[in-house]
Amino acid sequence: MTVTVPQGFRAAGVKAGLKASGNPDLALVVNDGPSKAAAAVFTSNRVAAAPVHWSRQVVSDGRVDAVILNSGGANACTGPQGFQNTHTTAEKTAEVLGISATDVFVCSTGLIGEQLPMDKIVPGIDTVAAALSDDGGAEAAAAIMTTDTVPKQAVFTGTDAEGNGFSIGGIAKGAGMLAPGLATMLVVLTTDADVPAEMLDVVLRDVTRVTFDRADSDGCMSTNDTVVLLASGASGAVPSAETFSEGLTQVCAELARKLIGDAEGASHDIAVRTFNAASERDAETVSRAVARSNLFKAAIFGKDPNWGRVLSAVGTTDAVFEPDALNVSMNGIQICQNGSIGQDRKLVDLEPREVHVEIDLQAGSAEATIWTNDLTHDYVHENSAYSS
Amino acid sequence: MTVTVPQGFRAAGVKAGLKASGNPDLALVVNDGPSKAAAAVFTSNRVAAAPVHWSRQVVSDGRVDAVILNSGGANACTGPQGFQNTHTTAEKTAEVLGISATDVFVCSTGLIGEQLPMDKIVPGIDTVAAALSDDGGAEAAAAIMTTDTVPKQAVFTGTDAEGNGFSIGGIAKGAGMLAPGLATMLVVLTTDADVPAEMLDVVLRDVTRVTFDRADSDGCMSTNDTVVLLASGASGAVPSAETFSEGLTQVCAELARKLIGDAEGASHDIAVRTFNAASERDAETVSRAVARSNLFKAAIFGKDPNWGRVLSAVGTTDAVFEPDALNVSMNGIQICQNGSIGQDRKLVDLEPREVHVEIDLQAGSAEATIWTNDLTHDYVHENSAYSS
Repeated sequence: MTVTVPQGFRAAGVKAGLKASGNPDLALVVNDGPSKAAAAVFTSNRVAAAPVHWSRQVVSDGRVDAVILNSGGANACTGPQGFQNTHTTAEKTAEVLGISATDVFVCSTGLIGEQLPMDKIVPGIDTVAAALSDDGGAEAAAAIMTTDTVPKQAVFTGTDAEGNGFSIGGIAKGAGMLAPGLATMLVVLTTDADVPAEMLDVVLRDVTRVTFDRADSDGCMSTNDTVVLLASGASGAVPSAETFSEGLTQVCAELARKLIGDAEGASHDIAVRTFNAASERDAETVSRAVARSNLFKAAIFGKDPNWGRVLSAVGTTDAVFEPDALNVSMNGIQICQNGSIGQDRKLVDLEPREVHVEIDLQAGSAEATIWTNDLTHDYVHENSAYSS
Repeated sequence: MTVTVPQGFRAAGVKAGLKASGNPDLALVVNDGPSKAAAAVFTSNRVAAAPVHWSRQVVSDGRVDAVILNSGGANACTGPQGFQNTHTTAEKTAEVLGISATDVFVCSTGLIGEQLPMDKIVPGIDTVAAALSDDGGAEAAAAIMTTDTVPKQAVFTGTDAEGNGFSIGGIAKGAGMLAPGLATMLVVLTTDADVPAEMLDVVLRDVTRVTFDRADSDGCMSTNDTVVLLASGASGAVPSAETFSEGLTQVCAELARKLIGDAEGASHDIAVRTFNAASERDAETVSRAVARSNLFKAAIFGKDPNWGRVLSAVGTTDAVFEPDALNVSMNGIQICQNGSIGQDRKLVDLEPREVHVEIDLQAGSAEATIWTNDLTHDYVHENSAYSS
């Protein structure tokens, strides 16, 4: 169920003392090869953290040997000192592992605008390297958590055309600031399939577009979001792009669903599906507009099937539709028919945590689903009390 | 302080029985001339309410004789029956006043997706017409309230180049769903200046762009937003476009500020000012991105001067700036300097209701301010419990 399921990987997670809680806060994932192929996608936020700038360079040659991740500090908006701290983290990791610093990928998550305590990180790297093991994935998953209440892991196993088995494993942390162009999330994906870096890059971009990019908890985009994919080739399997993409989609969709399911303060996980759209882009635009409406999200928290707030949000988009041809259902009850009053809203049961909103644009045949959360007292509480 | 301060206007507000609370819910403003010049701006939401469709036609010839407004029902997403009800409202008002229905402007506000109780509105129109008086503006202001806690009114008095006095009065209702392209708001503005309809239209669009359009309480755009401006010419004053625009800006800015000050559940009114921007559009884009960040808004509720969340929001825009040249201050303390840590955040006092966030892009000389509110428990409560 984790990044050490695929062959060729070791991982560890330890307590370096960065978190006031004393919980694990430093993780390391190492690719022992034979291949060191890698790809990554990053936040599209222009105010990107120091580790994002560093790691973008590291992965640019398609090779990553190790990923070092800390929670307890985002190292974002920390100026030249922050970049120096990321560099030092990579150098120290490289030294301990006997590899090049330019092959060490660095991720950070936590409070923005504070310098990392390097006096704890540097000795912590010795500790985490000493703890590396071929079943350490779960410890790594725990060490990257911030306000997550549970670690998130996923795994896929498949075979290539020759019948050779391979697997894909993943760990993720999320919780708040989940939005398009990725969430506040760090994700490490591993595979023992033998896939060249160019293909990893194409497939990863394709898959994140329809998984992580469509998890939009609160519309806020982070400075640190990173998804990195490492391929060891240790299984000897050489899956086609299609086969590999299917497996990766499954892992990423499962992780994305788990991120939404554990978002800060949420009491409902909401799938906003727009269908019969003129284009996938229209469908995504409409679903995202609804997923971002605070009024809609507060209504779902109140178990109020307020379709007027859905239509209000749909009406702000430039998607192809006629206002008097919109249909909306919630959990199977079509409460809006042709832009006006449909079935009795009292029939809608919003007790279950999972809510399905379906928007029929009657304008084509494309569709897209955005996953989001409701807007709750606990969201306000956590985000007014927790400085992140 | 209201729409009956300018000469040539009568108004009234009465209880027609639309609101379960029994509060006033039907208002009428009549222009007795001699001029009947008018202009209006409407929501840009494509899912517009029936009265918006009707009133857009009414004002298209630059003439409005009367405005009838109801609270207690938005008449949005109500299909052909909804449009018929708006038409009936205009016809009845015209009959009672002895004017043409095509000169009767109709506004509605309240719950979306329910038909209006015409058996209460039709007799209510007799009652409100009988109550018309030349000091009835305050009653009209009270009758258009929904979740507003106080009526909103404003007035300006000035003189034209010849020294002839004129005035501009306004009433507004707002509270929730405040966003660009106008808020859930109805605004009636009156003036006794003699201004032709074409000039009213130009000035009104210009003024709303920098006042109501920059009040963004929760990023949600309504189906009913309307601002209508009536000019009676009764004062004989003929102000220049510039003089009239100054007065109208003052009235609209005051009403917009009052809308933000009474937004649902808010505990802080926040002015997000972006300056040294390459363009006014850049400044507005940046300010709006910050004003729409739930994480930022929740932090202000928690009195946490979380500048990292400001930078995260700025980083999502396409405005011209360098991340390491951003400065941010809150209530006068420059907590972010050149994209990194500035003055001690503990120096920031977020106790006052009014909060000033200043974002220096160091990229030009343009500026813009968006007014917004914090994200509070009361916002979640009101919008999960109140179906609107």
